[in-house]
Amino acid sequence: MPLAAPRLADPGALCTDLYELTMLQGFFERGMQDIAVFEFFARRLPDCRNFYLAAGLEQALDYLERLRFEQAELDWLDGLGLFRRDFLDHLAGLRFTGDVDAMAEGTPFFADEPILRITAPLPEAQLVEARLINLLHFQSLIASKAARVALVAPGRRLVDFGMRRAHGAEAAVYAARACYLAGFDASSTVLACAEFGIPASGTMAHSFVQAHAGEAEAFEHFARSLPQAAVLLIDTYDTEAAAAKVVALAPRLAEAGVRIRGVRLDSGDLAAHAHKVRAILDAGGLGEATIFASGNLDEYAIRRLLEAGAPIDGFGVGTLLDTSSDLPALDCAYKLQEYAGQPRRKRSEGKTTWPGRKQVWRRYDADGRCCGDRLTLADERAEGVALVRPAMRGGRRVQPSPGLAQVREHARRQLESLPSALRGLEPAPGYPVEVSAAMRALAATADRLSGG
Amino acid sequence: MPLAAPRLADPGALCTDLYELTMLQGFFERGMQDIAVFEFFARRLPDCRNFYLAAGLEQALDYLERLRFEQAELDWLDGLGLFRRDFLDHLAGLRFTGDVDAMAEGTPFFADEPILRITAPLPEAQLVEARLINLLHFQSLIASKAARVALVAPGRRLVDFGMRRAHGAEAAVYAARACYLAGFDASSTVLACAEFGIPASGTMAHSFVQAHAGEAEAFEHFARSLPQAAVLLIDTYDTEAAAAKVVALAPRLAEAGVRIRGVRLDSGDLAAHAHKVRAILDAGGLGEATIFASGNLDEYAIRRLLEAGAPIDGFGVGTLLDTSSDLPALDCAYKLQEYAGQPRRKRSEGKTTWPGRKQVWRRYDADGRCCGDRLTLADERAEGVALVRPAMRGGRRVQPSPGLAQVREHARRQLESLPSALRGLEPAPGYPVEVSAAMRALAATADRLSGG
Repeated sequence: MPLAAPRLADPGALCTDLYELTMLQGFFERGMQDIAVFEFFARRLPDCRNFYLAAGLEQALDYLERLRFEQAELDWLDGLGLFRRDFLDHLAGLRFTGDVDAMAEGTPFFADEPILRITAPLPEAQLVEARLINLLHFQSLIASKAARVALVAPGRRLVDFGMRRAHGAEAAVYAARACYLAGFDASSTVLACAEFGIPASGTMAHSFVQAHAGEAEAFEHFARSLPQAAVLLIDTYDTEAAAAKVVALAPRLAEAGVRIRGVRLDSGDLAAHAHKVRAILDAGGLGEATIFASGNLDEYAIRRLLEAGAPIDGFGVGTLLDTSSDLPALDCAYKLQEYAGQPRRKRSEGKTTWPGRKQVWRRYDADGRCCGDRLTLADERAEGVALVRPAMRGGRRVQPSPGLAQVREHARRQLESLPSALRGLEPAPGYPVEVSAAMRALAATADRLSGG
Repeated sequence: MPLAAPRLADPGALCTDLYELTMLQGFFERGMQDIAVFEFFARRLPDCRNFYLAAGLEQALDYLERLRFEQAELDWLDGLGLFRRDFLDHLAGLRFTGDVDAMAEGTPFFADEPILRITAPLPEAQLVEARLINLLHFQSLIASKAARVALVAPGRRLVDFGMRRAHGAEAAVYAARACYLAGFDASSTVLACAEFGIPASGTMAHSFVQAHAGEAEAFEHFARSLPQAAVLLIDTYDTEAAAAKVVALAPRLAEAGVRIRGVRLDSGDLAAHAHKVRAILDAGGLGEATIFASGNLDEYAIRRLLEAGAPIDGFGVGTLLDTSSDLPALDCAYKLQEYAGQPRRKRSEGKTTWPGRKQVWRRYDADGRCCGDRLTLADERAEGVALVRPAMRGGRRVQPSPGLAQVREHARRQLESLPSALRGLEPAPGYPVEVSAAMRALAATADRLSGG
């Protein structure tokens, strides 16, 4: 159940790059308000990602719906000495009135495939560039990483533990959302749970143990205080000795109706400790108590633990996930594809892009596995399912947002439909994405129009 | 000049990890409110950092001063079914009433050196763990990276361009602050400039050029619209051809009183383009126009460009800086050092920490270069300057916050005082940090107290 009044405030219209505003003044002076088409896409897939997972659309649409400059913001801009007063007055009335077409959140995507298209008067479409990238990039970044973790640990409980080293509060909250969307079960970030209705999860810190005279006292005290969720952290001093203390404590707690749900390991050789602790718990009659592991985990560490047969029931994944540490940023862009009815294409060295409004068609085989995409112009038809669909018309959503649970279910089915090579951690042979002949022809036209 | 009403809102008391709250209920039930001492420190320096730079204290103190639970937040917590109502009622009155001692922002620090100490009743000191780490970790992470960029490019104009791929709005804003603090000159993130009075900077995007029929028209239009800040992006199609268009345009603009300030390169071989463009501009009478470069830059790329003698006057540094991509997180912690007058120390494998309240003494040689630190107990004396100083007493700042300009000047002098090996990019021999005999003795005592 989300919190009624969200605390993660909209940072407002000044959350943009300065050049968006200087360009807008240029457009304003020349009356350049024709319809522009921008698309957001990623340029390539590195070896450590076999697919990306689209996320952040919900926050992008919220941003577009709320976009407006407050008077105090305009006054502050005035003080920069860069802007004409008539331009700032014009900004006061600016709203996003355009169209958005997008892939549903939770859809896998590949290089050059747009996950969002903006069709709007040029100034509106330009102004929103920086924040749209900021929102779509980050959640897609984390969802893409989290999906790898989820795919490698089926049936295990996965909890996002990343708040403290996420890059700020917004990063922590949106990372939690992206993880849940991609298949995680819960988050320890309370604000994210409050904002999005994500199940909240957490155990105890070493400091809880340290603040007590001894571990046994700390364990008993915690379990009695939180009988419905008692997971005890047992690695503060000596892991196996602590497991034995848990076993010794259990009968007395059981008499009081308190059941120990599990233990958490957070350091050392997690597989070796898990085996020993499992044996201690089982021998002590705590066969139902689960073992939860954390500490510098990512999809590779979790795979190693599972391959070693470590009896671990769940994983807390933090820093390496919430910072997407092996790929802290995607090579992505929000590029002008068309202005005033003419296709546009940038040809900067190493950064050439496909022009025009695009559609992505995804084909599926008889088993329901996707087997190839086709990148076409938006008005072409092709075999398969069209992934880029209307999300907003005239500045308003075309339908109520799907809840996060529905997005998560969509992502689960989408991930299931990926070819098995793409679902693994090893670099897979490139997923086939064909470019239509009409798009190639348009690229040549765009080059000719710009004097290429 | 900062904006009067900041838009980057305090995310509130729910911006924490769930376990802080479950532990607090445990403390509440047993009346555990004795004074606890926690310290925040980094565990080690990787090869890609010769020092860290402390940042984020200002936001940490803001957070502590404002900390309180709103009724709606408590009601939401109630709905989780984990907490007793009398505990939630108690939370309603909770404020931070403790002491903070800290290193000044802009001070270099090394492994095991606390940059912040909290001395407060245990529940208060525990509750703030997750958000304090979140704030101090991120800004210190970015300041540490930005300082390397600043040290490698003396005399060059450095602008933070990272908003779009920073991990959310808060990350973009605090990254801009950390970069400026560490020696950058400006940021393109408007909200950061509005919040902190950082100079705003920006040029134009490829889309501005693309929206026009040709480059020459786009350049003239932009320069006339922004005569005081006209920097023209010249790599959309062909860099040298565009430089020639700039030269051809200059006389007509000069007649209108508009001077072209410079050009920006954003792709290709930046050194080669800079040499050619410099020659074109100089031959065309634009010797005063500067060359600004951007595009996938970090301290290594900038050093290569400068070593190649590239005539580049300034750099826009974005993604690799604002995500600290070579080190997206620090190995840092906020650990209980003392409770109810007794030293505490965790002994989890590979994570042993020094116990007790600490001080860091920094010694300087005759040239004003720092030459070694000594980690002592807080009540010891040692040679040099004591770096951990009172910042808050009884929940209130002991003095008004230094402005960001003052912090930046402090950082500049501190970076100048570092041994030259540490100021370079290559891994330097470890900076000497000695641990006092009294601290070693205390560690043994702490182990004995916890049954070690």
